[in-house]
Amino acid sequence: MSRIPLAPIDRIMRKAGADRISEDAKQRLRTAVEELGDEIAEDSDRAAEHADRKTIRKEDIDLAVEV
Amino acid sequence: MSRIPLAPIDRIMRKAGADRISEDAKQRLRTAVEELGDEIAEDSDRAAEHADRKTIRKEDIDLAVEV
Repeated sequence: MSRIPLAPIDRIMRKAGADRISEDAKQRLRTAVEELGDEIAEDSDRAAEHADRKTIRKEDIDLAVEV
Repeated sequence: MSRIPLAPIDRIMRKAGADRISEDAKQRLRTAVEELGDEIAEDSDRAAEHADRKTIRKEDIDLAVEV
């Protein structure tokens, strides 16, 4: 199962101003971001179904993020 | 600059039930997830500052996610 790697998570935290970051903080942010991704993915799946499509499109993600 | 790779994004979408996914849908979800990560990272940075620490800890992420 491919999880989000910690390198881009570290980059996101440093970009936000973090200098020192504990290892479990990175893992916690990774999990949080994956869970938010799960929710958006589920909503976008429903949005595509609602539009009678089998392919998830960018506009389904837009709807899931905005609504 | 290390972005979140598309493989874990694809995995998140398939786990949510997606069979077919357009390429720009994956890229859109990646961007959405990165932006949510940015917000949590900024809030956790403030949470650590608030606690007079220079190191971001797991509990700072918890606070940023929950509040």
